[in-house]
Amino acid sequence: MADLKSAFLNVYSVLKSELLEDPAFEWTDDSRQWVERMLDYNVPGGKLNRGLSVIDSYKLLKEGKELTEDEFFLASALGWCIEWLQAYFLVLDDIMDSSHTRRGQPCWYRVPKVGLIATNDGVLLRNHISRILRKHFRNKRYYVDLLDLFNEVEFQTASGQMIDLITTIEGEKDLSKYTLSLHRRIVQYKTAYYSFYLSVACALVMSGENLDNHIDVKKILVEMGVYFQVQDDYLDCFGDPETIGKIGTDIEDFKCSWLVVKALELSNEEQKKMLHENYGKPDPANVAKVKALYKELDLQGVFAEYERKSYEKLTASIEAHPSKAVQAVLKSFLGKIYQRQK
Amino acid sequence: MADLKSAFLNVYSVLKSELLEDPAFEWTDDSRQWVERMLDYNVPGGKLNRGLSVIDSYKLLKEGKELTEDEFFLASALGWCIEWLQAYFLVLDDIMDSSHTRRGQPCWYRVPKVGLIATNDGVLLRNHISRILRKHFRNKRYYVDLLDLFNEVEFQTASGQMIDLITTIEGEKDLSKYTLSLHRRIVQYKTAYYSFYLSVACALVMSGENLDNHIDVKKILVEMGVYFQVQDDYLDCFGDPETIGKIGTDIEDFKCSWLVVKALELSNEEQKKMLHENYGKPDPANVAKVKALYKELDLQGVFAEYERKSYEKLTASIEAHPSKAVQAVLKSFLGKIYQRQK
Repeated sequence: MADLKSAFLNVYSVLKSELLEDPAFEWTDDSRQWVERMLDYNVPGGKLNRGLSVIDSYKLLKEGKELTEDEFFLASALGWCIEWLQAYFLVLDDIMDSSHTRRGQPCWYRVPKVGLIATNDGVLLRNHISRILRKHFRNKRYYVDLLDLFNEVEFQTASGQMIDLITTIEGEKDLSKYTLSLHRRIVQYKTAYYSFYLSVACALVMSGENLDNHIDVKKILVEMGVYFQVQDDYLDCFGDPETIGKIGTDIEDFKCSWLVVKALELSNEEQKKMLHENYGKPDPANVAKVKALYKELDLQGVFAEYERKSYEKLTASIEAHPSKAVQAVLKSFLGKIYQRQK
Repeated sequence: MADLKSAFLNVYSVLKSELLEDPAFEWTDDSRQWVERMLDYNVPGGKLNRGLSVIDSYKLLKEGKELTEDEFFLASALGWCIEWLQAYFLVLDDIMDSSHTRRGQPCWYRVPKVGLIATNDGVLLRNHISRILRKHFRNKRYYVDLLDLFNEVEFQTASGQMIDLITTIEGEKDLSKYTLSLHRRIVQYKTAYYSFYLSVACALVMSGENLDNHIDVKKILVEMGVYFQVQDDYLDCFGDPETIGKIGTDIEDFKCSWLVVKALELSNEEQKKMLHENYGKPDPANVAKVKALYKELDLQGVFAEYERKSYEKLTASIEAHPSKAVQAVLKSFLGKIYQRQK
């Protein structure tokens, strides 16, 4: 695994060098240095799960046959395109959310002399995906499918981000808007397509598959992405901060979390009133009252039941799939997240 | 001309309606309303020159033959893609520059309740281009060429914006960085490709041409774009505010304008010192001193000579082109901007 990761990181270095010599632009020393620093700061520092999944999935689709050097490079390049996409979203999201830190360091826009230039850096990160695809896939039959795929997933993610942003406009904080259907919609579009579907879709396209024939795979992965985000919402409140590596602030931040949606669903009038009075306030006393209500409503039990049922449903859907290789891909994803503690 | 513009605007309405029903997203009333308002605010309110040029150029390439209804729609759709691209850049640029107004109204991010959500709206505007192209051009042989073209031009524009941004980082204001070669580079990448080359390139692609065979056309249009921006820089200082519709502030804003670059080139040591002391300061007394130096150096005469020579060179390049239809396209562009006063 450490080997795989370091081979994957080698591909990052190659892609970065190519981008810094892209003949479509006349580089200066200053601009080359800027982009190199921006990439190193924002692209390779995450867990790289999304990117590595392309390689894993492609291997499973090849049913265990060793990848050629060329195949490894191309699957890695697609994996890096997803990591670039993620970096692009995070750089811009952090600006919109006025966030302070990301992956244990200041957000890029908070780095001295960067500021709102980070907005244009976000745009550049997006453009790098097109440059990478053009350089390495232009002559493949499936080149246009890759362009369409990244375009569609980016559109869906930005649309999910939009509903999240417009439901939490300052001055219009209104808890009664938070329903399970809104939660599902935000999570599906903002997170599931690019975090779950995209990796497998890249591997399928590279294997010569037409994505129109894999609507069922998309559906399963999107469901898995929703389940993953519900876990995230749960861990934000009930996870161990030591294990998950951060202290959750969804309650303070008035987030449309699965927990508050469930709490609203299960509360009586009095409990609802209490939630309305305490949710989305920075004072620890308010936060404590919300957490006490979550426990009173046994959201830990409700979540455990949700997790069990999700696992059951997902497993059934996966086993109904005609291809054993595709089943293996989907089971590998599910195995990685079921009952995760971080 | 009024007819053409209103037919072009009809196509905008069609494209907007299609985007608001895009099946790749599950719309809510709120999100549909948000996007509609955002589009109407940012996309159709400019002069539409870039968009209309696609139709004009395509007509000239057809050597006067009437466009079919279908051809008119498709050329207009490509024109609107350029207007969408422009809207995307302007929404984000205004945020980065902390601008106040745009096209006579507050910048989108300054509209109440919008704020930094405008960043995501910028992303959506970019995504709409891919959605429009996919809906109307997916089955054309040249679909992938359009995707590549928009991707490359967007990359070039963002790269030009980057060198502009990093040379004007606050706290590092240094006039000695401003050279003719830096000015040319910024202008070529940030403005010329998307404002001049892109319209003609769209028309050529729609006519079935391979852009690799039209490197000369690209070169001429990029030269014209540079000339256009030099005019812009000139008019910012010497144009009639009544005619150009705004009061220039390039001197106050420490812009890398063609005028300051020429002034630096023509100044003696004493004049240079004076420029360093007065350029980029908000006080009208400083601005007046800079303008006095521009007059002392006869930048009006220098510009007139530059304009004459540019016109001569461009005309010679155009007349060297083998195709009369392409010559007509390029001459039409040049005719529209030569000696413009606004």
